Amino acid sequence: MDESGFTNLANARVAIVGLGLMGGSLALALSGCCREIIGVDADPAPLTFATERSIVHRTTDFDSALGTSDLLILATPVRTILAQLDRLRQLPITNYQLPILDLGSTKSEIVALMKQLPEGYDPIGGHPMCGKEVSGIEHADPDLFRGKPFVLCPLERTAPRALALTHELIFVIGAHPLILDAETHDSLAATVSHLPYAVAIALVRTALATDDEALWQMAASGFRDTTRLAASDLTMMTDILLTNRAAVLDSLSRFRAELEALTAAIDSGDADALRAVLESAQRKRSEMFK
Amino acid sequence: MDESGFTNLANARVAIVGLGLMGGSLALALSGCCREIIGVDADPAPLTFATERSIVHRTTDFDSALGTSDLLILATPVRTILAQLDRLRQLPITNYQLPILDLGSTKSEIVALMKQLPEGYDPIGGHPMCGKEVSGIEHADPDLFRGKPFVLCPLERTAPRALALTHELIFVIGAHPLILDAETHDSLAATVSHLPYAVAIALVRTALATDDEALWQMAASGFRDTTRLAASDLTMMTDILLTNRAAVLDSLSRFRAELEALTAAIDSGDADALRAVLESAQRKRSEMFK
Repeated sequence: MDESGFTNLANARVAIVGLGLMGGSLALALSGCCREIIGVDADPAPLTFATERSIVHRTTDFDSALGTSDLLILATPVRTILAQLDRLRQLPITNYQLPILDLGSTKSEIVALMKQLPEGYDPIGGHPMCGKEVSGIEHADPDLFRGKPFVLCPLERTAPRALALTHELIFVIGAHPLILDAETHDSLAATVSHLPYAVAIALVRTALATDDEALWQMAASGFRDTTRLAASDLTMMTDILLTNRAAVLDSLSRFRAELEALTAAIDSGDADALRAVLESAQRKRSEMFK
Repeated sequence: MDESGFTNLANARVAIVGLGLMGGSLALALSGCCREIIGVDADPAPLTFATERSIVHRTTDFDSALGTSDLLILATPVRTILAQLDRLRQLPITNYQLPILDLGSTKSEIVALMKQLPEGYDPIGGHPMCGKEVSGIEHADPDLFRGKPFVLCPLERTAPRALALTHELIFVIGAHPLILDAETHDSLAATVSHLPYAVAIALVRTALATDDEALWQMAASGFRDTTRLAASDLTMMTDILLTNRAAVLDSLSRFRAELEALTAAIDSGDADALRAVLESAQRKRSEMFK
């Protein structure tokens, strides 16, 4: 905070809790853009890695980070974030109006807990829409967020300064903000992120059950890309599926109906009917990522 | 054919029937490696494109190519290849022991028709396991085959010289040969290629049915990769699904069972049970493309 009481990123001490792929990439992306980057992790290995490579200026523990930072960023798997928010409810407040941003992949449960935080905190939900099929700070990448959407879920209580600070952070790391309420985020994320993950897992399991070594020799770029998400971190994904269960089950049910319609068209042997089912998806996907 | 009667790639006139992404890429990959590359296509546009850019030495029609080439390569969608093989059965033979290689994505129906060709032809089935989500010779890439498996399905009647010539071609374009019988190819391709395509289509259709513009803003690299195959050429894919119908329906049915097991694990809310379903797929996919 400067003398006028206004915190911007350049004079902020930013504590990142969870130095995995996401937290580590954020630390790298923020390099040179804030007064201090403080690393927090329950595991000593990423702290050593981050210190040795100067990815963070210093490391500390969760409770100490609260009193010595101007922005607290929770970058752990969702259920760990929930536990951290729960701990915040119990701790005495030492840092009045500390902005708290989380990077959790599902938002409804997190934002519901944020609403229950003591008034002394200034929470806002966040979710950078990016990732890799590898995890851990050793794969951290300062360009991970570049050009990607970064969802923000402000609460009614979120103060303008927390909103301004998180927007500044998003611009600095090269992402673009997308404001959504938590329920909309979770419902859309179920369809564009969690369902593709579930499908990738089921595809690899189908291939595994085939039990023919030639299958893996034949698997080419199509199989590789379609199943990339299956390699995602297990703890992160288990937390996502469990904390967004209703929306994920709904998207799975809608997907199954689409798959059945396609199966029926293949079964019919009617080229025109089949082509009609494929065509809208082909056109949309061709336009999407030009 | 040289004076000893032996044809190798360097002295062969290679006719490529179908100058799309695959045929065009093959022509580029063979550049400088054979005596002549002859382009054949029912559509004049790719012929003009290929001639103007010197991708082929000359162009001609299907019937003329038969008499003036030492290797005939059929690089059209599967049902067009079937029609071409049918035509070969009816034409008088002018080029004794002409090797015929096809690049069709499914092999059983093609190899069955190849078996019925007059003895004057020397047929062999093939399928390079590569592709792009774009089609047409304007996207042709000489490195498309590099490092990729190239399935060969020799017939009992395939002569050693056709086998040697196709192996030489595979090495020259940087692919590696994988010998399989047609039925095994089709069954494995259903799982590693056609099922991922069907799943990609169903994923895009599920997203389309959601009807929320924010969904497309949120769709990130995970959705992009998982659905890449949905942009594949419609005629090629319709032909694949129809000529490999039984194997595709079988893989869809096995996939649906895996999806139901995963859905039940998510529904249970039991983190350990869910993690157990995810884990084998996560491990396999992480090991696969290191």
